[in-house]
Amino acid sequence: MAPKIIRSPLAPKRIAKPKALSGLRLHVMASGARYKRRDDFLLIELNDTATVAGVFTKSKMPSAAVDLSRANLISSKGRARAILVNAGNANAFTGQAGAKAAALTATAAAKKIGCRAEQVLIASTGVIGETLETKPLLKALETGDNKKAKKTDKENKWQSAARAIMTTDTFPKLTSATAKFGNQTVTLTGIAKGSGMIAPDMATMLAFIFTDAALPVSVLQKLLQEANADSFNCVTVDSDTSTSDTCFLAATGAVKINGAAVKSANDKRLAGVKKALADIMQNLAEQVARDGEGASKLMTIEVSGAENDAAARRIGLAIGNSPLVKTAIAGADANWGRIVMAVGKSGEKAERDRLAISIGGIKVARGGKVVPGYKEAPVARHMKNKEISIAVNVGVKQGKGRARIWASDLTHGYISINADYRS
Amino acid sequence: MAPKIIRSPLAPKRIAKPKALSGLRLHVMASGARYKRRDDFLLIELNDTATVAGVFTKSKMPSAAVDLSRANLISSKGRARAILVNAGNANAFTGQAGAKAAALTATAAAKKIGCRAEQVLIASTGVIGETLETKPLLKALETGDNKKAKKTDKENKWQSAARAIMTTDTFPKLTSATAKFGNQTVTLTGIAKGSGMIAPDMATMLAFIFTDAALPVSVLQKLLQEANADSFNCVTVDSDTSTSDTCFLAATGAVKINGAAVKSANDKRLAGVKKALADIMQNLAEQVARDGEGASKLMTIEVSGAENDAAARRIGLAIGNSPLVKTAIAGADANWGRIVMAVGKSGEKAERDRLAISIGGIKVARGGKVVPGYKEAPVARHMKNKEISIAVNVGVKQGKGRARIWASDLTHGYISINADYRS
Repeated sequence: MAPKIIRSPLAPKRIAKPKALSGLRLHVMASGARYKRRDDFLLIELNDTATVAGVFTKSKMPSAAVDLSRANLISSKGRARAILVNAGNANAFTGQAGAKAAALTATAAAKKIGCRAEQVLIASTGVIGETLETKPLLKALETGDNKKAKKTDKENKWQSAARAIMTTDTFPKLTSATAKFGNQTVTLTGIAKGSGMIAPDMATMLAFIFTDAALPVSVLQKLLQEANADSFNCVTVDSDTSTSDTCFLAATGAVKINGAAVKSANDKRLAGVKKALADIMQNLAEQVARDGEGASKLMTIEVSGAENDAAARRIGLAIGNSPLVKTAIAGADANWGRIVMAVGKSGEKAERDRLAISIGGIKVARGGKVVPGYKEAPVARHMKNKEISIAVNVGVKQGKGRARIWASDLTHGYISINADYRS
Repeated sequence: MAPKIIRSPLAPKRIAKPKALSGLRLHVMASGARYKRRDDFLLIELNDTATVAGVFTKSKMPSAAVDLSRANLISSKGRARAILVNAGNANAFTGQAGAKAAALTATAAAKKIGCRAEQVLIASTGVIGETLETKPLLKALETGDNKKAKKTDKENKWQSAARAIMTTDTFPKLTSATAKFGNQTVTLTGIAKGSGMIAPDMATMLAFIFTDAALPVSVLQKLLQEANADSFNCVTVDSDTSTSDTCFLAATGAVKINGAAVKSANDKRLAGVKKALADIMQNLAEQVARDGEGASKLMTIEVSGAENDAAARRIGLAIGNSPLVKTAIAGADANWGRIVMAVGKSGEKAERDRLAISIGGIKVARGGKVVPGYKEAPVARHMKNKEISIAVNVGVKQGKGRARIWASDLTHGYISINADYRS
């Protein structure tokens, strides 16, 4: 039996309520395929002016949905018209039957919208290895929106949409911002899901970000990759990279920039959009860590003094993924020696005798040893908080590499969820 | 408070009782440095004919003991006379004070035995970041053997020695074998410790293997590295590589081979010794997994069809380290989709559509999907055992790479031990 789902103690106090965004329509459906009495199927319909960029899991065992979306992004040259998301079945490791099921649902969505099948992108998460039953999904596409989808945000139904893609998540993840786009104003809104099997190595989990700006695919892809490197690629729950990680960035094209068309991601008029995109993706990444399976604490790990940013990221992930660091955080144990261990095992360049560590802003170690007169009490007080900050300077000479990592702790809750329940 | 130490349910039924081995003497001491009422300090004294080989952690944060032993193995050209092991303090990340403490104890041991300080090797495990107090250790070296050390195996006190190096271990780890050495017979005996922070990436934890054979250092080093690759480098508890991993292989030189001196590890007269060494090191590696912190089950993972042996090892470790696989094993959940995920995340070459998985000898998946007519019941029965066998063929064309990995599961016990106790 699945354990009772308790909302993460780290959930944001308020769920964002984004305004409508021109150029798209959300269809929120309850297919009954795996879950009863809840929405579990989402169709995001995009205007024919839309452009879409995507990044996918680096897993060597990608799901049928990932295979199909990768191919369709290329064949449609990023001119996708729909993103179709089902919850509860990953359609991964399902062979020809899985590929066929993905193609069938894409074709049905294309028919509903009136576009070509190659303009449909798919994302599926849930159990691995079980054949996807298309019948309830095709029926839901025919029937259309679930009447019960909340009317409070009916213009775009963002909250309902974020809920419909959840599997083991305990809260819906969404956020929104506005930004300058030349002298126009555009909106950016993102939703995400993910709680376990989180250690993205390219994109992550599922995340879909939308803007009403008009942007060519090549620029969009560049913006997505850049923002992804500092957001979803910097979050971890359990070091287990999924077969299904997918992140799409769609621009509906409703708001055109004044003046010359945007042709490069380096166009200075994109500064506001870039900043908003980074904020949104980092916010969603942090929300995923906050909903890590069994999480009782959120770790934010700042790494500096590394050989380069990629090395800093790998060191930060070695800390955030270490079971011994994660259990120390869970137990509010100021056992900083485990952080030293994790830096050492990362394999990245680090100078032991110049290493410095702070916890909660308090210097713990520097120059390769504990600080003189170190007192544990203030650090132990910080360790009792729900949000733990760790800063490590790995002391590489002239090393300018930096990264910020979000990670959850490792608790009895994680064991209960994953040892007793087929996820 | 430390949790009550309960003997691992996976402990061997009988603790080995090796016979005496010519050319060495074990001094088992109770220093009182960290633990009370138990032996915690071991001096292994070697004849002046002895040769020693060593492998160490690849951690970038090696302990002072690892620094010293690495240097002394080189400066003494492998002609070490002593191995000194203290339990409860890793003397890692302790700066100049730690280096000095290591040197002081080495000098005292050298004085006791009558050798040069550079002929002493040191291994320390326990807490990271705390300065090693040398006083109780120097006193113990003066006082000598603990009179209470069990007299039942007094010739070499192997059992007492294996107990003296334990930290969070719940049982002493030792094993012994005899082998043909040309037409002579030699003995090989090994002891090891390790329970948490186990993911060796070169040597592992602490392991000391001894033989009475006479062998040059260069041959010994080759034999150790070869056997290490298939034993200690193939075991994992929690993916956390220690700062202190050390493995020594010492040959006391008491038994000389007949005929020409051995000059190469490829000498055919070493076949018996090689086989015995592989058996001993694999046996000790398996014992370490059996004593993994909180372990309730032992996984043996056989990987085949990989690009090469190193790739097979990394795939096996990705499976053995995956929190989602480990919790599925703990929960006796036949959730083989998590094995697919772990193969995918390893980053190694693998053919999804040719992948085959067996659990407990029962075929679960082949050709990239579940086997036709798959029945979970027999697999679920196997999953209830204490010893779980997983076999994965990753389907690389002409792939001959193979590895066998030993790993423990991830349980509430692991969380209790590591979230509540400073190890």
